[in-house]
Amino acid sequence: MKNVVFLIQCEDRKGLVCEITSFFFNKGFNIVNCQQHTDSANSRYFMRLKLDLAGMKTTREQLEKEFADFARKNSLEWSAHYSDITRRIAILATKESHCLYDIILRWKEGEFPCEIPLIISNHPDLEYVATQFRLPFYCVPVVNEDKESQEEKVLELLSKNHIDLLVLAKYMRILSKNFVQKYSSRIINIHHAFLPAFQGANPYRKAYERGVKMIGATAHYVTADLDEGPIIEQDVERVNHENDPEELKQIGKDIERIVLARALKAQLENRIIVFQGRTVVFS
Amino acid sequence: MKNVVFLIQCEDRKGLVCEITSFFFNKGFNIVNCQQHTDSANSRYFMRLKLDLAGMKTTREQLEKEFADFARKNSLEWSAHYSDITRRIAILATKESHCLYDIILRWKEGEFPCEIPLIISNHPDLEYVATQFRLPFYCVPVVNEDKESQEEKVLELLSKNHIDLLVLAKYMRILSKNFVQKYSSRIINIHHAFLPAFQGANPYRKAYERGVKMIGATAHYVTADLDEGPIIEQDVERVNHENDPEELKQIGKDIERIVLARALKAQLENRIIVFQGRTVVFS
Amino acid sequence: MKNVVFLIQCEDRKGLVCEITSFFFNKGFNIVNCQQHTDSANSRYFMRLKLDLAGMKTTREQLEKEFADFARKNSLEWSAHYSDITRRIAILATKESHCLYDIILRWKEGEFPCEIPLIISNHPDLEYVATQFRLPFYCVPVVNEDKESQEEKVLELLSKNHIDLLVLAKYMRILSKNFVQKYSSRIINIHHAFLPAFQGANPYRKAYERGVKMIGATAHYVTADLDEGPIIEQDVERVNHENDPEELKQIGKDIERIVLARALKAQLENRIIVFQGRTVVFS
Amino acid sequence: MKNVVFLIQCEDRKGLVCEITSFFFNKGFNIVNCQQHTDSANSRYFMRLKLDLAGMKTTREQLEKEFADFARKNSLEWSAHYSDITRRIAILATKESHCLYDIILRWKEGEFPCEIPLIISNHPDLEYVATQFRLPFYCVPVVNEDKESQEEKVLELLSKNHIDLLVLAKYMRILSKNFVQKYSSRIINIHHAFLPAFQGANPYRKAYERGVKMIGATAHYVTADLDEGPIIEQDVERVNHENDPEELKQIGKDIERIVLARALKAQLENRIIVFQGRTVVFS
Repeated sequence: MKNVVFLIQCEDRKGLVCEITSFFFNKGFNIVNCQQHTDSANSRYFMRLKLDLAGMKTTREQLEKEFADFARKNSLEWSAHYSDITRRIAILATKESHCLYDIILRWKEGEFPCEIPLIISNHPDLEYVATQFRLPFYCVPVVNEDKESQEEKVLELLSKNHIDLLVLAKYMRILSKNFVQKYSSRIINIHHAFLPAFQGANPYRKAYERGVKMIGATAHYVTADLDEGPIIEQDVERVNHENDPEELKQIGKDIERIVLARALKAQLENRIIVFQGRTVVFS
Repeated sequence: MKNVVFLIQCEDRKGLVCEITSFFFNKGFNIVNCQQHTDSANSRYFMRLKLDLAGMKTTREQLEKEFADFARKNSLEWSAHYSDITRRIAILATKESHCLYDIILRWKEGEFPCEIPLIISNHPDLEYVATQFRLPFYCVPVVNEDKESQEEKVLELLSKNHIDLLVLAKYMRILSKNFVQKYSSRIINIHHAFLPAFQGANPYRKAYERGVKMIGATAHYVTADLDEGPIIEQDVERVNHENDPEELKQIGKDIERIVLARALKAQLENRIIVFQGRTVVFS
Repeated sequence: MKNVVFLIQCEDRKGLVCEITSFFFNKGFNIVNCQQHTDSANSRYFMRLKLDLAGMKTTREQLEKEFADFARKNSLEWSAHYSDITRRIAILATKESHCLYDIILRWKEGEFPCEIPLIISNHPDLEYVATQFRLPFYCVPVVNEDKESQEEKVLELLSKNHIDLLVLAKYMRILSKNFVQKYSSRIINIHHAFLPAFQGANPYRKAYERGVKMIGATAHYVTADLDEGPIIEQDVERVNHENDPEELKQIGKDIERIVLARALKAQLENRIIVFQGRTVVFS
Repeated sequence: MKNVVFLIQCEDRKGLVCEITSFFFNKGFNIVNCQQHTDSANSRYFMRLKLDLAGMKTTREQLEKEFADFARKNSLEWSAHYSDITRRIAILATKESHCLYDIILRWKEGEFPCEIPLIISNHPDLEYVATQFRLPFYCVPVVNEDKESQEEKVLELLSKNHIDLLVLAKYMRILSKNFVQKYSSRIINIHHAFLPAFQGANPYRKAYERGVKMIGATAHYVTADLDEGPIIEQDVERVNHENDPEELKQIGKDIERIVLARALKAQLENRIIVFQGRTVVFS
């Protein structure tokens, strides 16, 4: 079944659900799913609409044009996502393989509706993983501390491959402001701590030193402010005094894997809307 | 803010969300919240609509009459729940105090929008709890194994006190088919196991003997089939070889408390629809 | 069964478990339970020994004297805790009742082997809770911003009542350095956040603003540095975009209750050893 | 550091920890780790001792002979596991790849101290996984319903490859009594349900039909009674009315992976003792 998901947000006011659903109903669409959220404190309305494309009588261009008119009148921010336009994602990794493997394996098992045209790394170490699954692997190292030209090469690869979404699967480099802006709300990172605790480097060592009884991981959109992007998903695992930093790291891997996978799934299923640094993640 | 919640279910078909929301929009209602679920396997549609009563121009009687007409035409099953008609609940308990206390305390702190006109027990042991909070306590024991006349007395108390909902807070008697039918989908029980595992008596001992690594609790509607009613909420806690049955029971108390509280909250907030022995619990 | 728990820590070296257990075995004690932990990074050894007092042939004074000699030779730090010397705890609260109630109810049900000779508050609001359970309640407000004399009055109450342990059950005042030092490792606080995230005031609002997907609570020993004391126990609960700060607070109450209860239980069962700002909590 | 782990169980009595630790101390061993558990209800004592082999002055044969004498006198059941004798495990799978991949990847990352000399399947489907990691793959199908000769071929492969431990990573065949007895307490299975709920086939469908709010997985030793073997590890994940059986299955995969991995880790680290159908799993 082909479908389209509309993600909508606007100032909250009376009659929104009825007006928006009527717009599509009057055009003959079947609404497969309709989810809403009202942020009362900020008087903000969020909607996720999934429409069956089967009975569509117009072109997509015309549908979008008409909805754009409707949206303009009603001051809606919106985006439309068609199920038959498969997202093309690039995985960026460095040396650790667990998140990279996890994404590839879930993708192979059909959990992620996307294509993976390439894997990019600043190190050659993970080439073998790409080879096992016959995926293109590009090693783009930073040479002579020239971060700028490394990022340029990466951006070129992304552009040439028509990449829609970047997944930082333990990519241990900080992206520049310029880079981030080019893929705003389209870069998902996994941070190996329960943010906002233990920002920055070596979170497992910091967690050990503080003696916390649980460790966590956080998947978030990358913004110019490091570790401050909108949080998509988090989870934790219980630890105790017997776990040294090395064991915390190993326990943490399982959380990282699962948290990143859930975030990527939510993104690919078009269930996330961002507003004021926070995410609405429909279930 | 006064509001009304409509719980609706029907055969799934095209246009439902639009038609139903239009019905209310055209009568001038503001839809505060609209949640849906489609059970594709059974082609069944579920909706929870929360309407602001502020702009209401008709009587409730008239609104319900008109919606009943609309529902008949569209084969909807439905119920309406007004926020200013406070539910009256009866708590039934036996000897254990933890769930009884928990409900009273949460109610005192405003978590449960309801009245508690009375507490009923088949034993005198928990009278002191009722006394502490100045709630009426009725001890209705089973005399000479005459279960029938005990139930009759309980039913009389419920009727006289206009009780809408029964909460079995560790009430250790099995209700008769006749009793259950009188309060269909209006009796919530807490079972001290992760159903369907360990049905019947002594679940903690059974859990110990089987050597499980987690124990749980289940809140469910009471039906004629013991421990087979629709599940509303469940949770578990990790245990290990060091926990004997007595400790499992103590650990279990915390799960029982929290699971029963969540189920009661969902019920009082009109978030539950039952279909074919399963529950849809809107978040 | 009467027993004594020895909590021991020292520099790690060969033969410790054998030497220490032999010390007690040769005196005719039955070792009911023996737990150990080695912190390899710091070369530190921790032991919890539980001895049956049934077969005891000497006085406790003599036992402790002899063990003190043994400990001195082996550079052990240690403490001994007798099961028949019931700990006397004071609960300090302010206006919120949920943790206070929780401790009293668990204590009433036999979960906490202790006495509760008094409840102290800087506000009169919770007197009714104490009255319900016929526990002495002392209201010691801060008058004219004179914190010092308020603390003096509290200290006097603690001293007169032979208090061994303080539980801050949502006591919303910061204790002075002087106060804290008098009850070092004997004040347990519940912080309504997953430390080290959201230190200080209004953690639920901060959590909401950051858009975290889980909230937590932390029980810790109080030290001179606010929210920096050794962590005893933590737990979290999943939340989402639908939860406003008020709901986060309500969800948080359940975590606070359970985390504080577990920490207090660990303390009363003598399962905690502190080393370098971290806790070893034996299971 | 080379070490040996002794797993010991016996009737509980006074002085055990001291006598056993003295036995090794007097032979000059450093006890790296000593864990115990007493099952009071059954008056049973369990111990796990980890000894540094560095200072060993005798042969292993002699050590074991002397300990066997000591054990006989004291009616101990025991086993000894040397860290430099790497366990050889066989993975048995059928068509689903997720558990197979998970074990291989963790093993590659050093989580499992073992060798994996071969993968056996009753279907050819997963050959490509073995090939990716250059592991031998044997397809041993059941031909003409002749289960017996299929099992014989598997047993021959296990024997020829000196296999110590079998991991059933979603191996969808029931092993015969004869087979199971040959590898008693050496076959670990992952069952895709929270046992004892939903035994047998199609647990996710059953879970869906019962409307449970959490699903789980169970790792257990395989015994002649299907799904009745000693439970090693369990975990659960929250689900809701939106999850159809297919989604439950997908969610379940993550639990299966992690539960099987934890069980295998516990086994390879010699932390499990079985008694009367239950496991003691040291942490």
